[in-house]
Amino acid sequence: MFEAGVVAGNVRKYLPGVRMQAIVRELIIESAAQLFAEKGCARVSLHDIAALSGVEPAVISELFGSESVLYGTVLETLFSHYAQVAGAAFAGGDKPLAKVGAFAQAFCNLHKQSPYLFTLFYRELLDPSIHFESIVLKNIRHVAYLSDSNFARGIQKDAFRRGVNPAVATMMFVGMFHYYFLAKEQIAGSLLPESVDDEEYIDLALKVFLNGLLKE
Amino acid sequence: MFEAGVVAGNVRKYLPGVRMQAIVRELIIESAAQLFAEKGCARVSLHDIAALSGVEPAVISELFGSESVLYGTVLETLFSHYAQVAGAAFAGGDKPLAKVGAFAQAFCNLHKQSPYLFTLFYRELLDPSIHFESIVLKNIRHVAYLSDSNFARGIQKDAFRRGVNPAVATMMFVGMFHYYFLAKEQIAGSLLPESVDDEEYIDLALKVFLNGLLKE
Repeated sequence: MFEAGVVAGNVRKYLPGVRMQAIVRELIIESAAQLFAEKGCARVSLHDIAALSGVEPAVISELFGSESVLYGTVLETLFSHYAQVAGAAFAGGDKPLAKVGAFAQAFCNLHKQSPYLFTLFYRELLDPSIHFESIVLKNIRHVAYLSDSNFARGIQKDAFRRGVNPAVATMMFVGMFHYYFLAKEQIAGSLLPESVDDEEYIDLALKVFLNGLLKE
Repeated sequence: MFEAGVVAGNVRKYLPGVRMQAIVRELIIESAAQLFAEKGCARVSLHDIAALSGVEPAVISELFGSESVLYGTVLETLFSHYAQVAGAAFAGGDKPLAKVGAFAQAFCNLHKQSPYLFTLFYRELLDPSIHFESIVLKNIRHVAYLSDSNFARGIQKDAFRRGVNPAVATMMFVGMFHYYFLAKEQIAGSLLPESVDDEEYIDLALKVFLNGLLKE
């Protein structure tokens, strides 16, 4: 929890420029994201975030107010990034099949660029915070809608089999990647051959999935 | 955490018969499983378990020693049950294809009969306890081995496509179900049509998956 006595004017004192403030905000968000992902938001203190970011606790408090606001800012940053990157995979005039591949690639890239995103997502699924509906679900729903529409268009255009429910296709598709990333740290390494890395798994899984979906 | 002063002889005092002891043990394990799943093992106290099970804290302490032992007993009970039920799907002389279907059905049944199993599994993946390797991973590995062997046999018998890595097939397969169950409470309801229940999802997902795997 955040300390009670926040020293007013600290931000001006420590961070004179607007640009410096933006840099420090980003530094705090990054450190907080790492800690929230690693330990879960209930087990992270302002002290932990200050220690990792190297920013004075009073400055963190003044920039973000409460820990819940900071946690919400972390979620908003990561999940709007997710919606943006995944959304880009469905933009443009490519065929539905190519867009499914682009979405899979985006998933893999996001895992590398934004490793805390998925961990925070799984934690939110197990223990939803007050930000779940307004941030997590809102963005997940947006991406799911784009993916559903893409599968529906593929079925309509006779590329994918009829009888496949687009929403089920989306859930299967993200499921086989989500579980891989959730399990990766702890078990995937001991269950998959060493030769199978992220790209290889995504490539092989995508092949079976698309094979099952494509019209002969 | 468990209370320090455990009153010796409580079990004999409260639970005179061996059969009664077994019933009380089961009652405690059931209540503890529910609480560990709902709140995560770090946030469950002996008091919570006593309140839910209706068993005196001193009796719980005497029967299980420490909370970590009780947590380990809960995991062992649920995960050995998982290995047994999933293992049964791969037993017998059925064809590999039929066994994949039986495994999917077992997953669905387990979710209904043992709702805390999967939640505890996801919690262990995010925050592994000291029991992770010896209980969780041991049983998961056993089931994965059976599934891998079944896919390998299907490929060998020319039922499944060559070029599909059996371990990748297992991970995709469990992934599309694990994510559905993980997401179910919080989001699957808002992402899938109302008509799609557990059986329907498993049935549809299995069709696409097997379609992708089967040799034409």
